[in-house]
Amino acid sequence: MRAMEIPIQHGARVIVTGGTFDKRYDAIKGELTFKETHLPAILEQARLTLPLSIDIRLLIDSLHMTDAHRQGVLDACRGSPEGAIVVIHGTDTMVQTAEVVGRARLEKTVVFTGAMVPYSVQGSDAPFNLGFALAMSLALPVGAYVAMNGRVFSWDNVMKDRQEGQFKERLQGSVTPRRGP
Amino acid sequence: MRAMEIPIQHGARVIVTGGTFDKRYDAIKGELTFKETHLPAILEQARLTLPLSIDIRLLIDSLHMTDAHRQGVLDACRGSPEGAIVVIHGTDTMVQTAEVVGRARLEKTVVFTGAMVPYSVQGSDAPFNLGFALAMSLALPVGAYVAMNGRVFSWDNVMKDRQEGQFKERLQGSVTPRRGP
Amino acid sequence: MRAMEIPIQHGARVIVTGGTFDKRYDAIKGELTFKETHLPAILEQARLTLPLSIDIRLLIDSLHMTDAHRQGVLDACRGSPEGAIVVIHGTDTMVQTAEVVGRARLEKTVVFTGAMVPYSVQGSDAPFNLGFALAMSLALPVGAYVAMNGRVFSWDNVMKDRQEGQFKERLQGSVTPRRGP
Amino acid sequence: MRAMEIPIQHGARVIVTGGTFDKRYDAIKGELTFKETHLPAILEQARLTLPLSIDIRLLIDSLHMTDAHRQGVLDACRGSPEGAIVVIHGTDTMVQTAEVVGRARLEKTVVFTGAMVPYSVQGSDAPFNLGFALAMSLALPVGAYVAMNGRVFSWDNVMKDRQEGQFKERLQGSVTPRRGP
Repeated sequence: MRAMEIPIQHGARVIVTGGTFDKRYDAIKGELTFKETHLPAILEQARLTLPLSIDIRLLIDSLHMTDAHRQGVLDACRGSPEGAIVVIHGTDTMVQTAEVVGRARLEKTVVFTGAMVPYSVQGSDAPFNLGFALAMSLALPVGAYVAMNGRVFSWDNVMKDRQEGQFKERLQGSVTPRRGP
Repeated sequence: MRAMEIPIQHGARVIVTGGTFDKRYDAIKGELTFKETHLPAILEQARLTLPLSIDIRLLIDSLHMTDAHRQGVLDACRGSPEGAIVVIHGTDTMVQTAEVVGRARLEKTVVFTGAMVPYSVQGSDAPFNLGFALAMSLALPVGAYVAMNGRVFSWDNVMKDRQEGQFKERLQGSVTPRRGP
Repeated sequence: MRAMEIPIQHGARVIVTGGTFDKRYDAIKGELTFKETHLPAILEQARLTLPLSIDIRLLIDSLHMTDAHRQGVLDACRGSPEGAIVVIHGTDTMVQTAEVVGRARLEKTVVFTGAMVPYSVQGSDAPFNLGFALAMSLALPVGAYVAMNGRVFSWDNVMKDRQEGQFKERLQGSVTPRRGP
Repeated sequence: MRAMEIPIQHGARVIVTGGTFDKRYDAIKGELTFKETHLPAILEQARLTLPLSIDIRLLIDSLHMTDAHRQGVLDACRGSPEGAIVVIHGTDTMVQTAEVVGRARLEKTVVFTGAMVPYSVQGSDAPFNLGFALAMSLALPVGAYVAMNGRVFSWDNVMKDRQEGQFKERLQGSVTPRRGP
């Protein structure tokens, strides 16, 4: 029975930490800052029908993320009642935080995502990335992943190419055959 | 090795058939019509790094879709060199076309998606749905699925609730445990 | 003294009647309908500092506008405490309503405007047209005008070219020299 | 004849100097920078039917504007064949450049405008301000003005309130009666 094969959909959790995804333009200061997360607006736009709990943990630039912050993200993942978790994170140190969570070998699927262009800027990749990451959190086996711009990477084989603004495999030839039917 | 577990990412295919996703406002006629697909614009916005081939098959309202059209979609899926396929489709008869593809039992993962609000309208669910469906096409086992607004359904257990504008399971209690680690 | 020459800015009034300007996409019905005016959202986006009173009179397609409706618009203009008035109106019969107001020769500046693309659709002309019309209501002598897409016309010399979706002079050669310094 | 009273519409000129209006998000650098002007995109959105010539003079932050730059803007105004001129300018030193143009007492109507939020950011005031300023350039007597967020000021009586992000009169009680019918 094919209906047996799809993953449970009892819900997922999104943990917000900030990053470009959540930057807003401050008209008085004339710069991009953090005020509140765009997540509820994006979820309304997505017309989400999946039960989703939201944990707004941090709203910071990921360059300012300390070891204590990363430990906090790990604790939030560990404490999550949902096994499918998306972490919204700045792209600059997303790989480091994914490593902290990955090494903990939780029995959960934790997918890190973010945006190269803030949601508040026209033509942002935030809604696409959030949809992509949420699906991966529901469908992939337990583990920690980075999902950006249509690709997903295991936490132990990903890097950000700052010149091109893209995430890539760190090692060559590590991509493996898909799990069969 | 966890890096071994993620699905191959040799690329995916998007088959366009039209639907609300692709409607545009015609300022002269004063109504929503089809002119060209928004897909390239959405993919540019998504900053897609995954190789993706695009097959623009139809640009019609799914209420106008005939059996011949559905057969054409099935043929397009069958002929696709990529095993991960997203079909952009109008929501009104998405379930019927998914059934035609599902019954064919292709050795491919075919995920139907669309939008409740056109991409050209502010606050569209199109980018989120496309990201979600693309991830599902990469991560789910072979089969035909409908993926909308954060949920994914097997082709043989899904219906559109027209009153609420939501997709739901057709049968009760059919959701099954997620595949374990 | 140049500072003496600019018009008073004690405020203006916007009378809403509906039209394309205010259409919204209804995701359940799958069509553009009226629900509530976009005017407050546009004014917030415009960061308006001018005192502005809003009179939401109608929310209809201008093809459905009757003589009684037009008389109601005239009454609203006549009763306005502000001498600078913008009327948001559907483009199809904007000229007829402007004529009703124009013939009344009120001691007010009434500028009709609207949109070729709804505010809720990406790339709408609504914010530009509203800014343009508001300025004309403050700066032009008393009279009734139609202001669309960067041009302003006297009520007695304007027509909508339905083929091109543009407003034009009805008579040739009637454009006159600008008032001098 | 009322048709005689509206200003000529032989066209206008827009001189671009940059400012917040024209900032774009650079996804690689992660900050707002200048790349090219948004003006053509805004004019297309505005469905402009008025002949308009565009002079892209500068694309800089107005805090970096020198006396030589301001002299260049004045020269561009002086050399303009059109008598109705809009200058797109950063808000921080808009008043200073308007003063340089105002003191020159050109026989033209020059209206300075800009944006508090870049056009590329959702909810920008740029389209509204451009429409408002263009109308003022067509309708006001010759002189130099600052037009922002629904208000227009003579160059010799305007200041930017940086705390509130608003333009205001510099002197009290200088607002004068509107020109009568």
